[in-house]
Amino acid sequence: MIKVGIIGGTGYTGVELLRLLTSHPQVELAVITSRAEAGRPVAELFPSLRGYVDAMFVEPDDAALAQCDVVFSATPNGVAMTHARALLEADCKLIDLAADFRLKDQATWQHWYGMEHACPELLDEAVYGLPEINRAQIRGARLVANPGCYPTAVQLGYYPLLKAGVVDPMHLIADAKSGVSGAGRGAAVPTLFSEAADSLKAYNVSGHRHQPEIAQGLAAVSGGDVSLTFVPHLTPMIRGMHATLYATLTDTGVDLQELYEDVYANEPFVDVLPAVSHPETRSVRGANSCRIAVHRPGGGDTVVVLAVIDNLVKGASGQAVQNMNVLFDFDETEGLAQMPLLP
Amino acid sequence: MIKVGIIGGTGYTGVELLRLLTSHPQVELAVITSRAEAGRPVAELFPSLRGYVDAMFVEPDDAALAQCDVVFSATPNGVAMTHARALLEADCKLIDLAADFRLKDQATWQHWYGMEHACPELLDEAVYGLPEINRAQIRGARLVANPGCYPTAVQLGYYPLLKAGVVDPMHLIADAKSGVSGAGRGAAVPTLFSEAADSLKAYNVSGHRHQPEIAQGLAAVSGGDVSLTFVPHLTPMIRGMHATLYATLTDTGVDLQELYEDVYANEPFVDVLPAVSHPETRSVRGANSCRIAVHRPGGGDTVVVLAVIDNLVKGASGQAVQNMNVLFDFDETEGLAQMPLLP
Amino acid sequence: MIKVGIIGGTGYTGVELLRLLTSHPQVELAVITSRAEAGRPVAELFPSLRGYVDAMFVEPDDAALAQCDVVFSATPNGVAMTHARALLEADCKLIDLAADFRLKDQATWQHWYGMEHACPELLDEAVYGLPEINRAQIRGARLVANPGCYPTAVQLGYYPLLKAGVVDPMHLIADAKSGVSGAGRGAAVPTLFSEAADSLKAYNVSGHRHQPEIAQGLAAVSGGDVSLTFVPHLTPMIRGMHATLYATLTDTGVDLQELYEDVYANEPFVDVLPAVSHPETRSVRGANSCRIAVHRPGGGDTVVVLAVIDNLVKGASGQAVQNMNVLFDFDETEGLAQMPLLP
Amino acid sequence: MIKVGIIGGTGYTGVELLRLLTSHPQVELAVITSRAEAGRPVAELFPSLRGYVDAMFVEPDDAALAQCDVVFSATPNGVAMTHARALLEADCKLIDLAADFRLKDQATWQHWYGMEHACPELLDEAVYGLPEINRAQIRGARLVANPGCYPTAVQLGYYPLLKAGVVDPMHLIADAKSGVSGAGRGAAVPTLFSEAADSLKAYNVSGHRHQPEIAQGLAAVSGGDVSLTFVPHLTPMIRGMHATLYATLTDTGVDLQELYEDVYANEPFVDVLPAVSHPETRSVRGANSCRIAVHRPGGGDTVVVLAVIDNLVKGASGQAVQNMNVLFDFDETEGLAQMPLLP
Repeated sequence: MIKVGIIGGTGYTGVELLRLLTSHPQVELAVITSRAEAGRPVAELFPSLRGYVDAMFVEPDDAALAQCDVVFSATPNGVAMTHARALLEADCKLIDLAADFRLKDQATWQHWYGMEHACPELLDEAVYGLPEINRAQIRGARLVANPGCYPTAVQLGYYPLLKAGVVDPMHLIADAKSGVSGAGRGAAVPTLFSEAADSLKAYNVSGHRHQPEIAQGLAAVSGGDVSLTFVPHLTPMIRGMHATLYATLTDTGVDLQELYEDVYANEPFVDVLPAVSHPETRSVRGANSCRIAVHRPGGGDTVVVLAVIDNLVKGASGQAVQNMNVLFDFDETEGLAQMPLLP
Repeated sequence: MIKVGIIGGTGYTGVELLRLLTSHPQVELAVITSRAEAGRPVAELFPSLRGYVDAMFVEPDDAALAQCDVVFSATPNGVAMTHARALLEADCKLIDLAADFRLKDQATWQHWYGMEHACPELLDEAVYGLPEINRAQIRGARLVANPGCYPTAVQLGYYPLLKAGVVDPMHLIADAKSGVSGAGRGAAVPTLFSEAADSLKAYNVSGHRHQPEIAQGLAAVSGGDVSLTFVPHLTPMIRGMHATLYATLTDTGVDLQELYEDVYANEPFVDVLPAVSHPETRSVRGANSCRIAVHRPGGGDTVVVLAVIDNLVKGASGQAVQNMNVLFDFDETEGLAQMPLLP
Repeated sequence: MIKVGIIGGTGYTGVELLRLLTSHPQVELAVITSRAEAGRPVAELFPSLRGYVDAMFVEPDDAALAQCDVVFSATPNGVAMTHARALLEADCKLIDLAADFRLKDQATWQHWYGMEHACPELLDEAVYGLPEINRAQIRGARLVANPGCYPTAVQLGYYPLLKAGVVDPMHLIADAKSGVSGAGRGAAVPTLFSEAADSLKAYNVSGHRHQPEIAQGLAAVSGGDVSLTFVPHLTPMIRGMHATLYATLTDTGVDLQELYEDVYANEPFVDVLPAVSHPETRSVRGANSCRIAVHRPGGGDTVVVLAVIDNLVKGASGQAVQNMNVLFDFDETEGLAQMPLLP
Repeated sequence: MIKVGIIGGTGYTGVELLRLLTSHPQVELAVITSRAEAGRPVAELFPSLRGYVDAMFVEPDDAALAQCDVVFSATPNGVAMTHARALLEADCKLIDLAADFRLKDQATWQHWYGMEHACPELLDEAVYGLPEINRAQIRGARLVANPGCYPTAVQLGYYPLLKAGVVDPMHLIADAKSGVSGAGRGAAVPTLFSEAADSLKAYNVSGHRHQPEIAQGLAAVSGGDVSLTFVPHLTPMIRGMHATLYATLTDTGVDLQELYEDVYANEPFVDVLPAVSHPETRSVRGANSCRIAVHRPGGGDTVVVLAVIDNLVKGASGQAVQNMNVLFDFDETEGLAQMPLLP
């Protein structure tokens, strides 16, 4: 039994962490903070938790947090880095669900996130928490940068191709579609129901923060430069992310289906579908799963990979719990047995 | 560990039963039938079950089913009654999620369901499976008629008022709103996405099959005649049911909040919200819960009760599992710990 | 050709006014104001208007507005009343789409809207702009209070019954369901897509601002007191409003279908459906129509009326244009020929 | 005033034709056929048309149809070709909204549509009805093949690039997202609300009928072979189509914004958005518009084009009316002034 803290539990990754941790047999929720909601029962903010979660929000306080074995930071970008030193010094592990520790290069980080980094000396130490690729490094880490939702889907989709070196890494195209919950629970006009329902649009086509994160990860896998065009789309669904990935084969002899099945054969949270399949986002709704299909239309030199996740689970809170399981040497599936909700 | 069979597992109540039973520690799925899909893995039809359910559909066969301890019939109306005798004779309990055994009066049943009843002699024996009202009778039953979704929400909402005898039973108005999954998985124009999305309509205002079912149940509680106007509405959401119930108080001195809290104090699946609350259907999405709030606008003599359920869980498959738990003397919450999925 | 001004055109009623007025042959848009967006082309804020509307937002300025023949105020409550005197003195008519002039009683208004009224002396003069009931008074008015969306649907639904005096006015129950656009375009958590989609809830059951507005209108029709229980619900659709109205017949001999058809025989914007019909909200999407069906379930003494409108058209901007047509003696359907968009 | 007929008006393109033609000043609806609904008023099937359309469905009959000046065939594939000869011989023009005359190569057509072509001799004569590219040929045509929805969005998006010869035509990638109405009004499980809502999936990745249609059109423009990877996705919205198009620039000096603005400068139905824009599908909801934005992420050699249409208007019935306007030398915008419905 470990003690767990959550910084900033008022957003969607927060409520999702609560849902997952509540059914985790090795975990006790010790503290959950929110400056805005301090003193209010969590279940008052999230009526879905009534009867399951008794906790109350408290003011953020590093001393209280430091008594936890691990703290999840489920806040906007720029907050976790202000807690990191204090927590690590107190031997408390930190899993940041935001972007503070995802990029290795400080200048790049500051360019995309528009602020000074509060503890750049930790950027090197931080481990990028994509267990299917980085499991070994995560195991001994103190500080885990939980990947973004787009980067999770895109990297899991491209990984076998780049690892095997069978595609041209300089012409990757990732066309990704996200549910609206990916934009968070902050009040904003573009994510109002009446704005986002029954419509679809691309956004940030000229540049999105997840592009350098994905490129950094893919480059590490491919062992050289990659050039990635990444186009995100806002889609009228609550949860769900669909990455449609395109690459040009340099080795047209490879058996793509076999390649994917081999790479992910022992991964509990990656499901390679049979040939000629099309995963639906709802097939992973609420579950810590990534389902993948690989196609080669017309037998040509373009490979098309379809990868779906629930952006709040495998794309955020579920993956954070998976990282915690790796950190504490629990069974990696502990607390993550929730089946997808369909329909 | 008991052996469980499912007749007709290709609809929404079927896939939901599979989701719930898979995580039930006392249950082994022995057989699942479908005439149309015999020979096909269940997870091929419902991709959400890939990795969780290995079963394959088989042709319906009473001999195989009869070796189960309990069989759930998740078929359209009129099918369970053709299996009932054979199963009961073989000491296999039967829980029918359709309407075959919900009405006590054969003529009324035949009027509303438009067919001959295949085993009218069992109508009397069948127990109406609303545990919060009928728990004692369910305990010893062989044959359970699992309530409809509307009847569950409406009866749980009215129950305290009628039990306490504080409203006029002759002027009850139940305005109910259902998600589209309540209409099932059969291909039909009115439930196409392009027909049902972004719109709302009432239907069957002049008469709906659930009206006599509700009236029968409320009459039993009130100990006399009731007159109920029941108006169902089709709402553009997948799951979810909201019953807005109106009644005229005959005793305006009663403390309604206290009444509801008392009646449901020990019910694990009914949550009476604090005064002045408004339950949202999503607060029970995927969970076997009914959340209820009671209002008295302007302090007048009209009481307004708001009751929400997930039509596929507390309104169908979850309640069926709850009934199974009662039948086999398991903890009533066994296998029903799934937390609501929000957002 | 008249000159038209719009105060506050950045919300949904504003963009809808622009859509309707653009195709109105008798109207020239002279000025549209927005403090926040002054200097910005309207079509930049609402991309749907690109190619149709060239106007630019300007700072609100009574002098400029006063040169119009009529001004629509499409602002939050409390703004129109600050412009009213200046406009009326300049012989400019004012149609307020918010609530400033809807209630005759100043104290009631101040109770529900939580502010001092800025020009109580105009409350008496203001005409409630429901043409089907008040056409004659509207004709000569200077100041029109455009009805709320709920009040429009509920009053049009109850009107024939109360006019004919065939129901008990002391036990009216209006269960109403609204699309999310009724809550406006302001950034707010409860109307985010991820909060409002795939869910339904009642709200303000203990008291909603539209209740006194409806009660005032129904009392005027019935010629005596009415007692109305009004329960609004938030529904996951963009546009659309469905009022389900219940009343107890005092005269059970009346032919309800005939009554409704007679009352609305000459109304271009009210469509009484054939007996046993169920109007869908999408059947009026984008159109200035109210479709109504009347039922008497089981031939009992409860009448059920179903009335649907598009909350932004007949429930707001379309009705405002209809009022303008009446004010200026244009054909009442001028500029309102848009057909419903289905699917 | 011309006489117009519609074959098969019971689907979504049929009801949309009725909406558009009803407000077309040069058109009289002479006949509308439906084998299944003969004898039934159109407005009974589509309640949105009540009060606007009085017509009644009749049995299909070539003699009656042949008295029209033009007939729209809004049926499934394979029907228009059985009427074509008779109509053309009677000097009645035919606009087919299905695919019967879209492909020039009979063998390719038969391969993709799985049937014998009933009048292959007309394939050559048929003109592909994309006015922005083929206006001159349409003008004198007797038989117009109205483009598919995907082909319309994809071709309008790629047209300037291929015409100018500034991209590699052998590596085109079209990632397209469609609303569910594109799948038609036929009852089918995958397009049920409970299947298609709150989810997204790709389909037919290994091959879709619109691929050869698009490739044929793009090859004609580019004057040589093209190789196109086309991936369609089903998206939870009713109407709307978003094509995200990728190509590799061979001439990186070209001013893409200028190129697009020049090519479409005089097109009433194509709107090139300012640089750095992202069109939303709702910005064309209900309108015969295609809005396009062009991007070059990071200034690299990949160009990204975003093109949105309403699949039922510019992607089907609106374009059919536009083609009719060209055929009969009406103003091309006649009857197509409907503004987009937003929100």
